[in-house]
Amino acid sequence: MNDFVFQSPTRFVFGRGYADKVGEEVAALGAKRVLLVYGGGSVVRTGLLARVTASLEAAGVSHVELAGVRPNPEVGLVRKGIELARAEKVDLVLAVGGGSVIDCSKAIAFGVPYQGDVWDFFSHRATIGDCLPVACVLTIPAAGSEGSASCVISNDALNLKRGVNGDVFRPRVAILDPEVTFTLPQYQTAAGAVDIICHICERFFSGAGPVPVTDNIACGIIRAVIDAANTVAEKPNDYDARATIMWSGTLAHNDLCGCGRATAPEKRAGGWESHGLEHEISAHRPEVTHGAGLAVILPAWMRYVWRSNPERFLAFAQGVFDVEPVDETDEATEDAITFAIDELQRFFVGLGMPRTLADLGLAPEEVDGWIDTLRQNKGERFGELRPLTMDDARAIYRSAF
Amino acid sequence: MNDFVFQSPTRFVFGRGYADKVGEEVAALGAKRVLLVYGGGSVVRTGLLARVTASLEAAGVSHVELAGVRPNPEVGLVRKGIELARAEKVDLVLAVGGGSVIDCSKAIAFGVPYQGDVWDFFSHRATIGDCLPVACVLTIPAAGSEGSASCVISNDALNLKRGVNGDVFRPRVAILDPEVTFTLPQYQTAAGAVDIICHICERFFSGAGPVPVTDNIACGIIRAVIDAANTVAEKPNDYDARATIMWSGTLAHNDLCGCGRATAPEKRAGGWESHGLEHEISAHRPEVTHGAGLAVILPAWMRYVWRSNPERFLAFAQGVFDVEPVDETDEATEDAITFAIDELQRFFVGLGMPRTLADLGLAPEEVDGWIDTLRQNKGERFGELRPLTMDDARAIYRSAF
Repeated sequence: MNDFVFQSPTRFVFGRGYADKVGEEVAALGAKRVLLVYGGGSVVRTGLLARVTASLEAAGVSHVELAGVRPNPEVGLVRKGIELARAEKVDLVLAVGGGSVIDCSKAIAFGVPYQGDVWDFFSHRATIGDCLPVACVLTIPAAGSEGSASCVISNDALNLKRGVNGDVFRPRVAILDPEVTFTLPQYQTAAGAVDIICHICERFFSGAGPVPVTDNIACGIIRAVIDAANTVAEKPNDYDARATIMWSGTLAHNDLCGCGRATAPEKRAGGWESHGLEHEISAHRPEVTHGAGLAVILPAWMRYVWRSNPERFLAFAQGVFDVEPVDETDEATEDAITFAIDELQRFFVGLGMPRTLADLGLAPEEVDGWIDTLRQNKGERFGELRPLTMDDARAIYRSAF
Repeated sequence: MNDFVFQSPTRFVFGRGYADKVGEEVAALGAKRVLLVYGGGSVVRTGLLARVTASLEAAGVSHVELAGVRPNPEVGLVRKGIELARAEKVDLVLAVGGGSVIDCSKAIAFGVPYQGDVWDFFSHRATIGDCLPVACVLTIPAAGSEGSASCVISNDALNLKRGVNGDVFRPRVAILDPEVTFTLPQYQTAAGAVDIICHICERFFSGAGPVPVTDNIACGIIRAVIDAANTVAEKPNDYDARATIMWSGTLAHNDLCGCGRATAPEKRAGGWESHGLEHEISAHRPEVTHGAGLAVILPAWMRYVWRSNPERFLAFAQGVFDVEPVDETDEATEDAITFAIDELQRFFVGLGMPRTLADLGLAPEEVDGWIDTLRQNKGERFGELRPLTMDDARAIYRSAF
């Protein structure tokens, strides 16, 4: 087990109807005036926004709104939010939405006290210092941003999508109300389940050897997500299944599944190869849902790299799909691992996710553009279980068509 | 899944040689002068205390010492620590030890700002308010107190052992250095493993139905602890196995394994029947190691109550021991459950733990005394999966001889 630091300070308030608790929770943090950040129509249409503002008012907390966060949130809106937060002297940023809204809120929160341009943090020209407190009401379980130390923002002008990490902007409180997700369309629910599983896999397939307690937890969460996502596909209003997905999404990304698997104690575990590869796709094509991209990339990456570390992939096959090789030959090992990858992909496709990049409306001619920005973001090599060159990345993209 | 609040704010700093990091960690919390609390000779003999004080000095943190914490820590020493902390104007309480030392430190920390007697909190005459910050260097993975909101203190004069819960006294930082536990004798290592498994079981066997994500995590941790404890029994210096036990002990009691299983959101999950029953034994007989008492009581409790909820016990049998009933008859179910309880007890006994209360040097004549104080602590009924009357408690104690 490698050395690690684990701290997940967020207060997770989880339950039926808990969206109505947001006022009392942010008031308990001392907030008097909050910047309420959200995306498009769905939080308005479902009445969630009205419930949140009523809850704030009842708790004596005033608010100013920033709407229009898109999937793969863009730095332009972050800048606008920073100006608004400064002008209105808000003391907390409250996200009502999924990972994009929460990430946008985090970037606003650490952008407000900084005198330069917020993109400086993403281009490694500045280090995050102070930060307004962040709170959230989660509507899409997927990104895990409600408990994570990550924030990913796109920059359309530069054709880049970049992430920063920092404990200072982890949400202080996250309201997790599974009923809010009953209205989430199947496609988004499925993409969320893929993203959750991928967050666990990125850590599970770090370069570290077995870490039994962490590995058992990781596989146990993935099994629960698979069962729950299959249930929700049939019964969208199944509370327990929705709750399982929601809580798993948090645990998948609050670093619990990385304990003992990182190369350095304060570092996040894993090489994040699939996320690295997918980010280029949705940076160039913002209409691609992140989780749908991952549903194609994760199995493609697995097929490309598993021979570098068959022991780890066998542990995955056993822990998630209860597959044992029939004997100790290389063929039996290959069969077991290939079966597990096939099963994972079958599960994704069964939920309505794409099998190939072509299914996403993408063309092989786009690969060179993705490689260009991948190289800008990652250099000539990236990843950990098997470091990937740009040629490897190209081969994985091509294999996914 | 029942509603819950989960918050585990402790910063866990986990790794080889990390006992030497305590100075920088408490300095980062702003501490200038700490009360250093420890037990008997082992932390002195192994050189750990000298490493801790050197680390404090190097970080510019002064200290005053309170030694002599015994297993099942007594309120008398807590009172002495409170006086010392006030007189010396310490700003943090630093525990170097296991659960007893950490619990004693917690009680000192919340006793210092309170004007009355600290036992008031344990006799429900006062509610915990302010609290000095607590930090710890863990030496015995067992109680989980390094991440928990629990504190258990004995009162010899009253023949009572009582607990309080409160987020305010959770350690701010916990140093987890598995190498420190290499010298822990097998008996204490084993008793710790039992306690860890029991903390998970108390939550697993709450009255709630299945909570797949939490249940998978719970069973996954128990499986890891069983493997690691068996390894350590053969190889006391196996770092990874020691690390597995240490981290599992934290996760077993920071409430992760209770998410969705409690009857009310801010309540701890489970009926804590085995702990309730065992506490009376070690309150009357402080020489009984808590985990050794649990090694007898937990299986005895399981055999007595499983028929009240065979589904839950079957989930345990499947999740921990991979046992499936051969068919759907009651006999097959009983066989599977009995096999799992037998396996658990076989594992405990294989580690050198007692099978019966007689093995602990206890006599059936003592049961009435335990029932008397159990009634004082719990009233006429307690527990959740199957509420236990005092007659039930007597029957479980007797069955354990």
